[in-house]
Amino acid sequence: MIANMTEDQLLVLVIKYVREAKRKPLQELLDELHPYDIANIYRSLPTKHHHKFLAFLEPDQVADLIEELETEFQVEILQQLGVQESSKVMDLMENDDLADLLNELSVERIQEFLDVMKKEDSIKIRSLMSYPADTAGGLMTNEFIWIHANQTVRQAVDKLKEYASFSENIYYLYVINAEKKLVGVVSYRDLLVADINEIIEDIMFTRTVAVKVTDDQEQVAQIIERYDFIAVPVVDDEDTLLGIITVDDAMDVVIREANEDIEKLSASGKDIDFNTKAVTASARRLPWLILLLFIGLISASIMSYFEATLDQVVALMFFMPMIAGMTGNTGTQSLAVVVRGLSQYTINKKVVASLIFREFRVSLIIGVTCSALITVISYFWVGDTTIGFVVGISLFSTLIIGTLAGTIIPLILHKFGIDPAVASGPLITTLNDIFSLLIYFGIATAFLSHLM
Amino acid sequence: MIANMTEDQLLVLVIKYVREAKRKPLQELLDELHPYDIANIYRSLPTKHHHKFLAFLEPDQVADLIEELETEFQVEILQQLGVQESSKVMDLMENDDLADLLNELSVERIQEFLDVMKKEDSIKIRSLMSYPADTAGGLMTNEFIWIHANQTVRQAVDKLKEYASFSENIYYLYVINAEKKLVGVVSYRDLLVADINEIIEDIMFTRTVAVKVTDDQEQVAQIIERYDFIAVPVVDDEDTLLGIITVDDAMDVVIREANEDIEKLSASGKDIDFNTKAVTASARRLPWLILLLFIGLISASIMSYFEATLDQVVALMFFMPMIAGMTGNTGTQSLAVVVRGLSQYTINKKVVASLIFREFRVSLIIGVTCSALITVISYFWVGDTTIGFVVGISLFSTLIIGTLAGTIIPLILHKFGIDPAVASGPLITTLNDIFSLLIYFGIATAFLSHLM
Repeated sequence: MIANMTEDQLLVLVIKYVREAKRKPLQELLDELHPYDIANIYRSLPTKHHHKFLAFLEPDQVADLIEELETEFQVEILQQLGVQESSKVMDLMENDDLADLLNELSVERIQEFLDVMKKEDSIKIRSLMSYPADTAGGLMTNEFIWIHANQTVRQAVDKLKEYASFSENIYYLYVINAEKKLVGVVSYRDLLVADINEIIEDIMFTRTVAVKVTDDQEQVAQIIERYDFIAVPVVDDEDTLLGIITVDDAMDVVIREANEDIEKLSASGKDIDFNTKAVTASARRLPWLILLLFIGLISASIMSYFEATLDQVVALMFFMPMIAGMTGNTGTQSLAVVVRGLSQYTINKKVVASLIFREFRVSLIIGVTCSALITVISYFWVGDTTIGFVVGISLFSTLIIGTLAGTIIPLILHKFGIDPAVASGPLITTLNDIFSLLIYFGIATAFLSHLM
Repeated sequence: MIANMTEDQLLVLVIKYVREAKRKPLQELLDELHPYDIANIYRSLPTKHHHKFLAFLEPDQVADLIEELETEFQVEILQQLGVQESSKVMDLMENDDLADLLNELSVERIQEFLDVMKKEDSIKIRSLMSYPADTAGGLMTNEFIWIHANQTVRQAVDKLKEYASFSENIYYLYVINAEKKLVGVVSYRDLLVADINEIIEDIMFTRTVAVKVTDDQEQVAQIIERYDFIAVPVVDDEDTLLGIITVDDAMDVVIREANEDIEKLSASGKDIDFNTKAVTASARRLPWLILLLFIGLISASIMSYFEATLDQVVALMFFMPMIAGMTGNTGTQSLAVVVRGLSQYTINKKVVASLIFREFRVSLIIGVTCSALITVISYFWVGDTTIGFVVGISLFSTLIIGTLAGTIIPLILHKFGIDPAVASGPLITTLNDIFSLLIYFGIATAFLSHLM
């Protein structure tokens, strides 16, 4: 029955059960739902029912629910449950999710929760919380299964069975030696195919791919994506196994990084989605726009500098928006290639040199094509060879400069470890506006006697 | 020993083995490597060694290798192997990868290969090839394990063992009824925890999440990401189980879609990365630039229309690049939010209406702030209240129009199923240039008597 119900029907049923205090049918219903769906129901459930709903759940169900929810709901649930009940739930949460949740709370609140947790758990959590959020350490969970190299397949399967009842990360077993160093990996599939009495050492895969605990999250996601892994082990400098990172977390990283790249390119400010409030969205976008407004005023003062030229040949103005726009466009194209590439390639001098050279050749090809076109068009329109020539040669120069600015500026920022968010699309567009004005009016002024 | 070698050392060793025709040590070496690493070695291996290297591999190793390589290498390998040997390898490839590979070949070549393949395989491949590449059907593999609802856990485990030796997709078993309809799912973990004599029907999860074979690949990736699945089943309209899609393919989709969003925003053309040749990159970017060049000429003709106004108040020109630039910037910000949101939200009238209303409020806040700033600045600079007023009111209007254009244009294109690539950043920037020129000079002309 439950199998074919819509989300709304499920919600109505849940409210009915909560109202009538029918704990058992509610439990049975929730057993058939994924945590993602339960979280959707919780979000849609009127707030007045939240307390009762939570009271009807088992701690492990609350743990699953919390892992799916946003911070504001998570904090609300902790408040509803109280410290004692919350700590029970926390014991059942994935350690990486728990560390993330605690990181959102105040120092006093964290201490309060850690105090009532099991000693060993609180030590683990503290160690997880000590890693920066965007590194392998910040992503990893320390719920994984390890086994010694000299144990048998039978022992491994037994350990797996024992572990399966309370964890989901059971696709690989990590093999360690006496010093707790990672020496190999065995997949569930290897165990199925192997003879029950074989020694793990003989069937394990020794060229294990692991990430360092300090590695950037983007590198971790790359490894998981390239090798099609379901999980990757995390080690310290001495190869001691510290935790694992699962593919679902890697997928979240990929999505987050792609969104960040787009935010950079559009200077649209951090974390604006369809649900962001207008005031918040404005506050995040305005600093960029005000900065760009002041840079835009530089254009104004450049033009006032060339006032004499403009006053004499107003026709020059007609092509200015086109030249500035084209320079901005070509810069944005290069910028997009670079920003996206930086997240997908390992950068070294050779890569950088060949990229800049490639973009230079691109700018020559584009420059010749577009400036030839515009020279012809402007000649026929204005009927003046000199204006056609000034427009053509200006466009040629600005396209080359625009392309190179869009390539080199983000590379330089990346090189110096400056947040490449500064090399945002509109910023490069605005800079290119200025370059193109200087070139266009500079060339025009030089040819002024011909233009008159 | 192999465990700690660098990629270069491995390559040297492989070349040595190939030269000395040492097949066995080469096999042992490759057994310890991931397909991703073997593919890297193949790419770096001098072309003259390719034939011999391939001859030393087992068909299943070649199959794994082909799955990791780019089309040009894949086609090269098929040519090296010949039709007979290739068909052996194809039999061992994942069906979804094979269908993708065949789709790259000519109709005659496809027929040649299908003719020598096992009849049942060639039927499966043909059916996979019939789905569009960007749908669930195009992504799915039909290598999965199914079981009947009335079988026991023991039978399921036996089937799993049998299957484990030749496939990797063994994390879920899909449960079907007598009509081959999907009725449930059992994870490997459920089997481990269950009693060996239990009936599958009693332990299976019935509220299965499945995707339709015609679903868009983006929706499929969303489902896998939301539910943290390792694989999701694919069904037709009658719920008949057709195949599964694994998380690694979903991850590739997410990366591809993010790249496409960025290409749209920057109009940088399809598939340009650090390795694209300059001529190819230029050819992909030029059509956009030439289109934008012609749109830019519209600006020119608008300005020539206002020539009389310009001729009288040259100072008006100074603020024009700033106004056009700001309008473009705010449009790009909105566009980024919309393009990214379209790939993450389910779109309906309510979502669209509230988004447009939100962006309208954002534009009011941004418009008031920026235009107040610029009115004051331009007043002090030019020393003329009317110019300050014209600039301020123009910026206010263009910021509102720019924001709404960046929001509404991509939504309209999406609504009519037109490729939203057309709503690219530079295109919206250029359109906003035109809007802002019309408004600015329109208002200026209206106030002309005051300006003189």
